[in-house]
Amino acid sequence: MSPKITTELLRQLRQVMKSSRYLTEPIQAYIVPSGDAHQSEYIAPCDCRRAFISGFDGSAGTAIITEQKAAMWTDGRYFLQAAQQIDSNWTLMKMGLKDTPTQEDWLVSVLPEGSKVGVDPFIIPADQWKRISKALKSAGHVLVPVKENLIDAIWMDRPQRPCKPLMTLDLSYTGIGWKEKIAAMRAKMVERKVLWLVVTALDEVSWLFNLRGSDVEYNPVFFAYAVIGTDTIRLFISGDRMADPSTREHLLLDSSLEAEFKIQVVPYESVLTELQAICVGLSPKEKVWLSDKASYALTEAIPKAHRYLTPCTPICIAKAVKNAAETEGMRRAHVPKGSVTEISAADKAEEFRSQQNDFVDLSFATISSTGPNGAIIHYKPVPETNRALSGNEIYLLDSGAQYKDGTTDVTRTMHFGTPSAYEKECFTYVLKGHIAVSAAIFPNGTKGHLLDSFARSALWDCGLDYLHGTGHGVGCFLNVHEGPCGISYKTFADEPLEAGMIVSDEPGYYEDESFGIRIENVVLVIPAKTKYNFSNRGSLTFEPLTLVPIQTKMISVPLLTQKECDWVNDYHRKCREVIGAELKSQGRHEALQWLIRETEPITKMH
Amino acid sequence: MSPKITTELLRQLRQVMKSSRYLTEPIQAYIVPSGDAHQSEYIAPCDCRRAFISGFDGSAGTAIITEQKAAMWTDGRYFLQAAQQIDSNWTLMKMGLKDTPTQEDWLVSVLPEGSKVGVDPFIIPADQWKRISKALKSAGHVLVPVKENLIDAIWMDRPQRPCKPLMTLDLSYTGIGWKEKIAAMRAKMVERKVLWLVVTALDEVSWLFNLRGSDVEYNPVFFAYAVIGTDTIRLFISGDRMADPSTREHLLLDSSLEAEFKIQVVPYESVLTELQAICVGLSPKEKVWLSDKASYALTEAIPKAHRYLTPCTPICIAKAVKNAAETEGMRRAHVPKGSVTEISAADKAEEFRSQQNDFVDLSFATISSTGPNGAIIHYKPVPETNRALSGNEIYLLDSGAQYKDGTTDVTRTMHFGTPSAYEKECFTYVLKGHIAVSAAIFPNGTKGHLLDSFARSALWDCGLDYLHGTGHGVGCFLNVHEGPCGISYKTFADEPLEAGMIVSDEPGYYEDESFGIRIENVVLVIPAKTKYNFSNRGSLTFEPLTLVPIQTKMISVPLLTQKECDWVNDYHRKCREVIGAELKSQGRHEALQWLIRETEPITKMH
Repeated sequence: MSPKITTELLRQLRQVMKSSRYLTEPIQAYIVPSGDAHQSEYIAPCDCRRAFISGFDGSAGTAIITEQKAAMWTDGRYFLQAAQQIDSNWTLMKMGLKDTPTQEDWLVSVLPEGSKVGVDPFIIPADQWKRISKALKSAGHVLVPVKENLIDAIWMDRPQRPCKPLMTLDLSYTGIGWKEKIAAMRAKMVERKVLWLVVTALDEVSWLFNLRGSDVEYNPVFFAYAVIGTDTIRLFISGDRMADPSTREHLLLDSSLEAEFKIQVVPYESVLTELQAICVGLSPKEKVWLSDKASYALTEAIPKAHRYLTPCTPICIAKAVKNAAETEGMRRAHVPKGSVTEISAADKAEEFRSQQNDFVDLSFATISSTGPNGAIIHYKPVPETNRALSGNEIYLLDSGAQYKDGTTDVTRTMHFGTPSAYEKECFTYVLKGHIAVSAAIFPNGTKGHLLDSFARSALWDCGLDYLHGTGHGVGCFLNVHEGPCGISYKTFADEPLEAGMIVSDEPGYYEDESFGIRIENVVLVIPAKTKYNFSNRGSLTFEPLTLVPIQTKMISVPLLTQKECDWVNDYHRKCREVIGAELKSQGRHEALQWLIRETEPITKMH
Repeated sequence: MSPKITTELLRQLRQVMKSSRYLTEPIQAYIVPSGDAHQSEYIAPCDCRRAFISGFDGSAGTAIITEQKAAMWTDGRYFLQAAQQIDSNWTLMKMGLKDTPTQEDWLVSVLPEGSKVGVDPFIIPADQWKRISKALKSAGHVLVPVKENLIDAIWMDRPQRPCKPLMTLDLSYTGIGWKEKIAAMRAKMVERKVLWLVVTALDEVSWLFNLRGSDVEYNPVFFAYAVIGTDTIRLFISGDRMADPSTREHLLLDSSLEAEFKIQVVPYESVLTELQAICVGLSPKEKVWLSDKASYALTEAIPKAHRYLTPCTPICIAKAVKNAAETEGMRRAHVPKGSVTEISAADKAEEFRSQQNDFVDLSFATISSTGPNGAIIHYKPVPETNRALSGNEIYLLDSGAQYKDGTTDVTRTMHFGTPSAYEKECFTYVLKGHIAVSAAIFPNGTKGHLLDSFARSALWDCGLDYLHGTGHGVGCFLNVHEGPCGISYKTFADEPLEAGMIVSDEPGYYEDESFGIRIENVVLVIPAKTKYNFSNRGSLTFEPLTLVPIQTKMISVPLLTQKECDWVNDYHRKCREVIGAELKSQGRHEALQWLIRETEPITKMH
């Protein structure tokens, strides 16, 4: 991976930052967040502005360019990758390390007195705006919204915004019809005494209307907003996508229908003006519900007295708790995959996946890495870095797919020769952490961050750790990363775990320039039976949906407790039963033999 | 415990809430927080306004009285006690349970349109004011500061504010002189570019000046504020306490001294007007540093543009990390106590403690409870509830003392007959949790809340739990509960653990109407040696300072792992060595025999 040379681009951007064509007054710094107008984690090529200006194309990061400097903030998953992708014009700001300044502290330290800092109000979340604006203000600077995006102004070959055809999902996949979902959300609105609900997250719009798209790679979503009133529904969407007969039928656009379920289709770009118009008509005390992570532009469109902001919209929570049809779908989606450079192995994994029923797309770019590349946590193989798999190095494969019935995401770490004692030791600590979370029993209402240390305890005991969270919410034929639940030492926006939620369990260990280990299953939150039941609260635990053998060759069995050995053997027994039956019925005898070999029980010597 | 009859008091309060003598306009609700003007946890009798109006005298709780209703919010430690102490005029609001409304939500649901809610601005922390005010405002109500405290207006026999003599502490106890401490705080002020530091917490004032008092029971502090400028020191304190020659000498009041260490002594009551005067003289950008937990009154005295608010003052953090003299003192303070109704046992414990060198006072009201009283987490025996200790019931003793060299806090749970299998089972889960925290190894910079689940895991596995945090910071001859660190599922104001910090480790299990179990040690954060050292971060663990046998009769040994057995035996070996030597030198042969019996090693059968 060689860095992108950005000298000329930065020169152009700094020129634009002073140009009266875009600005009434020059700005001394420009913030380039990573998201799109929907605060998506994965974004369309036209929205990859931070990658364009800097070269760093990881999923999380913020660039800030001043008249003299350029700095890039990213987290532990991307320290290595970002360092390789940015050139010497940039300073890498490693978030989470003690001495790394926050964006606002850094700005205050480098800006000349009385500076103006610009940002596109559509792509900065309102809470971030508020935090940065406050800090700048108290140091005598000001944060200003810049309507025209300044990156777009210098991006000559910027791709078009995608506008791909939609896919409708019927009840057998979704369990609940869209009218029913809207009625349920309106009930939540009545409960909170709000008149309007603004839906800005792409996966929330998709879930609400039981539609899927492919505007964003790996995420089956489409560019749209929705505004739900007590008896109106507005869907903001571009192009002629509503011309398709099956979509029209699905949304009952041509049927005579109760007025409150009649969908008004409105152009995507008009969301701001329509929202402003709605707010003009509000009586005092009438409220509009919006996520506090929505863009500053949309948040500002609602006068303060009418805003009802919450960390999660009711859709976000309803979507996280999977219904029976969705849970069943997620279970089905987790059946066979078969598995030699990094790229060819990744391609092979995709080929096997795509042979399965209901396959739609991958759920994210496959991470296929061997040896030192494994230490780049979100590594994606490209020809320049492609290494041959060998019998001397650890191989890490993190891959997943979108099926009509569900989304998968699995990581396994393997060795095709003889792993070293140290590699086995580290693998075993990671496995102990994986089991500690997967087998944990905890009270109803527990937040995921309270389980994070279980995943790290075995590593901590030896002075080891990993610089990423332990798990994320997983959508059902939706984004592979979704809120509002997760398992992380970070505690923000962490809704309590409930039966029906689905998260990943993926501790790891990464040794720079040497190897990477991660063991990841997608797990379903289920009720747990316990001996007692304190305060009648009930308990929860996890059921693994992912059923892929964990390479026993990598395990140092003496480091496992008897309970942990039993967990591994039980898990492998289930893999044999469920996946074995499927392989048999697909006539894949070689794969079946492999499965049986890989799921041999392990035994602890006494 | 019979409830306080509050019908007449509430009638009087509601009259005052409409009285033009105290208010320009009537208020429809009045909030009575539990704290004093310093946000102390333990408060002087004159500040026990919430207990006066409601009868509930636990350490945490907020009362709100409207024209029709009266409600009391408290947490899991006090559900039983509050229910017993309040009469039917009151509704108990159990915080932390799912269906309990927040104070602001409840107010919004019961208030008539356009209501005024009053509160004493000196006793409500600014962050609470802000939260409540915002919620009320968005529902069309308003929160107003009421200068004269309305409880005081109806409290005929309200005690005087205490004004007890001060005690000076020399370097052998404090390790650092007060001038050096002030210089260190000024260095922090320069770092943060602030001109003034306002010290409002009583223990912070005590620590800063190496003074102690006895204005508040169990807490060796005195009523005072301090305002530190870059070259001035103001100490706000009442009465003639500065007349005492040893105090004058300690503070160098009569010495010729560098100007920047000259202390101006100012009357306690003038803090608000002095602070306002300071703020009038500020140039733009000049900042005043204050805790964000300080009172609304003091926070408002600083114009917004000049405020520098942080969750912790620099004193709070410096105080939490104990220096060598303090650590040594804390170690010394944890030597022998000897150890029959609940009250007589508590008295005996106090008698034994008071025979030790440097004894000053208890550090909190002893909790001595047997059988069902043990389930009241913060139970304090009084004649009406006093039960005889018996051979059939579990006995819980939670006690501590203030010595000149340190503060202690220890809980042990004992049975003087034959505990039931269930009692032993529960005790063993609690012990496993205690050990899991005490023996935990974790990276430098870990926040305490990430360790909380370790204490609960064994209980959770069986569907059990406890409704309080696992540990609190412990002051050094200061408050037995201090910030900014702790071990709790609650995550606010949780500073990372550092070597030198001291916290308690006290998981429990409480069965309503039956028994209570808690095992508490005070533990010191120390560096841990680990096999590896990821990212060169270093690791931490805990060293128990408390050395009191854990009753092995209560342990169900088969439930312990070999590692846990080893921990118990190692701990008891250390008790024998350190405490045994002390008992021998004090000539307490009977106690020594008891110690040897109680510290016999346990063995796991194979």
